[in-house]
Amino acid sequence: MPADGAVTQPLGFRASGVKARIKSDKKDIALIVSDVPAVAAGLFTTNRIQAAPVKLCRANLRHARARAVIVNSGNANACTGPRGLADARRMRDLTAEAVGTERESVFVCSTGTIGVPMPMPRVEAGIRLAFAGLSRAGGADAARAIMTTDTRKKEFVVRLVVDRRPVTIAGMAKGAGMIHPRMATLLVFLTTDAAVRKPALQAALAGAVAGSFNRISVDGDTSTNDTVLCLANGVAGNRLLSPRHPQWNAFRDALQAVCRELALRIVEDGEGATKCVTVTVRGAVSPADAEKAARAIANSLLVKTSWYGQDPNWGRIICAVGYSGARVEETKADIAFDRVVVLRRGRVRPAAAGALPAILAKKSFSIGVDLNLGKAEYSILTCDCSEEYVRINGAYMT
Amino acid sequence: MPADGAVTQPLGFRASGVKARIKSDKKDIALIVSDVPAVAAGLFTTNRIQAAPVKLCRANLRHARARAVIVNSGNANACTGPRGLADARRMRDLTAEAVGTERESVFVCSTGTIGVPMPMPRVEAGIRLAFAGLSRAGGADAARAIMTTDTRKKEFVVRLVVDRRPVTIAGMAKGAGMIHPRMATLLVFLTTDAAVRKPALQAALAGAVAGSFNRISVDGDTSTNDTVLCLANGVAGNRLLSPRHPQWNAFRDALQAVCRELALRIVEDGEGATKCVTVTVRGAVSPADAEKAARAIANSLLVKTSWYGQDPNWGRIICAVGYSGARVEETKADIAFDRVVVLRRGRVRPAAAGALPAILAKKSFSIGVDLNLGKAEYSILTCDCSEEYVRINGAYMT
Repeated sequence: MPADGAVTQPLGFRASGVKARIKSDKKDIALIVSDVPAVAAGLFTTNRIQAAPVKLCRANLRHARARAVIVNSGNANACTGPRGLADARRMRDLTAEAVGTERESVFVCSTGTIGVPMPMPRVEAGIRLAFAGLSRAGGADAARAIMTTDTRKKEFVVRLVVDRRPVTIAGMAKGAGMIHPRMATLLVFLTTDAAVRKPALQAALAGAVAGSFNRISVDGDTSTNDTVLCLANGVAGNRLLSPRHPQWNAFRDALQAVCRELALRIVEDGEGATKCVTVTVRGAVSPADAEKAARAIANSLLVKTSWYGQDPNWGRIICAVGYSGARVEETKADIAFDRVVVLRRGRVRPAAAGALPAILAKKSFSIGVDLNLGKAEYSILTCDCSEEYVRINGAYMT
Repeated sequence: MPADGAVTQPLGFRASGVKARIKSDKKDIALIVSDVPAVAAGLFTTNRIQAAPVKLCRANLRHARARAVIVNSGNANACTGPRGLADARRMRDLTAEAVGTERESVFVCSTGTIGVPMPMPRVEAGIRLAFAGLSRAGGADAARAIMTTDTRKKEFVVRLVVDRRPVTIAGMAKGAGMIHPRMATLLVFLTTDAAVRKPALQAALAGAVAGSFNRISVDGDTSTNDTVLCLANGVAGNRLLSPRHPQWNAFRDALQAVCRELALRIVEDGEGATKCVTVTVRGAVSPADAEKAARAIANSLLVKTSWYGQDPNWGRIICAVGYSGARVEETKADIAFDRVVVLRRGRVRPAAAGALPAILAKKSFSIGVDLNLGKAEYSILTCDCSEEYVRINGAYMT
């Protein structure tokens, strides 16, 4: 499916992306508008320090109707105190006024540097420009405008048929660093023309996020601004979707497919990343143990740098499992790179050595750890850590 | 104090460091021997995967007397199964035989790559060579032989007077990567000629380690081999030290001073480190919260790379506190670089900006966070993360 300009592919959505000079000379304000009132669902960062726009978005979710999402990159509007909150409200009110809707139906999102006041004259001019530029072809510009250290825009579209009517679910995402499980800066905007009951949409979104954005990690840092929003405007004309609808599962799975694909692209575009690695821990005594062990491997700087060096260093992997807090017995653990088992019941298989360099040289591979203690399993998607990651984050000045 | 050859400065200790070709062409076996039986105290990694020599050392601690420590670098003898345990026992027995003591009085330590069988013929020849080379001047060679990615040896000596007799406490350490609080690969060997009651020595060592090696972090990875050992042989002739002795506090403080100095040098020599940073969190509601917040800052890859880039990015610091799990209120937190407060009660102090570049340019500075919610405090010493760290760990092949 051609995903270019994804978020405006569902019927009844327009978007734009413009340059407001919040940052240098790139697009930095995106606007998405539904022509008719939509229902919205959202999930936000678990960081106890939350950016001003996150606070507004949370409050907005209680409102029945949603019409627009205004987003800026280049400034996170986090740790900006009462002024930051006033600035976020101003962004919301200005957008509501332009669109001609009540302010509670406008979501505000920001991403960029923490602790710097928003350059409001530029932001205000940018919002007006973004409104003037709204179009059915504006999705691609919007996807570009939300990028920070991303090297490419991330969009995806899935189509399905509900009640014999074509339904489109689309999404765009940004995120390359400060990406960690449990809602990692990560902004994701999903649009669909499906008619969906509001609580059902929230449940479907929570499930999709749990299986996608909450299972990726770039650097183990959880941002103050993470936001996933989904707007469903019903223009497709299907009967209202909820778990009682015969095609609910198809809709829910399609929404998850969009989230999973965007999550994968975030990891592939991880700051400085050269490899995309799926870490799966099986045979843990509990789901919590499986998750702890998988996250410890995925976040270990020593494991991530060994992948970058194309070194099949399973010792660092078992070491990370050891300090993860999960129950592990040295004489029971298996470790595999793709399907090549290097450690079986705690013993090295020298025969495996020959196959490893080719696996480590690939752009993407998997690490499988079987603790052989129980039945719980957890998977997480992550990337390696290169010198380029350090360069990017040493240079990204406040 | 001249610390060169530290561990042989206390009376009654000899040491050596030799090349056994376990690794390329550097010294890789160290031996420390007390001429008379000593009492020993020890602390070990909390990683659930523990190297074979760590298992032996733990068992040895129950024995009343200690005579020798045999150490190799280049191979961690971890995840090496029954063969690894047999190899560690062989190292112990060979050393005991050479020194002429019972095997329970010989400690064995290893550091290096995980999961590779020990090259025993070389190790055995090396042990014999090390025994032949024992001397009162051998401390410096021993300190060199335990190094892995360390760029310099780490030694320190403190002298004090107990019962009018000169007492010497000395130590050597290795550690540059896989360094994380809670006993990070970190090998530390302390010698003293003081006479100390065994349980008192263990208590003093535990206190000293809690205030030194457990308060440093290089990369957040906890090794399978961490070991701190202290041998006290009583050759100084003082009355047996224990908490009842009038000079107990002086001894305990001196032991801690040796540990703190060695801990500082480990961080200064952190893999690729260019800066040494003390992170202190005050005003937390509980000691656990203070520790969580301080560790989150010290281990955040985004914070560490910002220090490397000399960027006074307090936003990443407050973000790390936010996801640490510690209670924090945005409108109460203060953040300072050295004595320059950049954030007061959640508000930026623009006046501080001018002073920051000079602080960030220093080789060492401090970060102070006051949560202003309670009275608990925690400090941790850490370093920045540079491209060199990634190069070192991408290239350190199994």
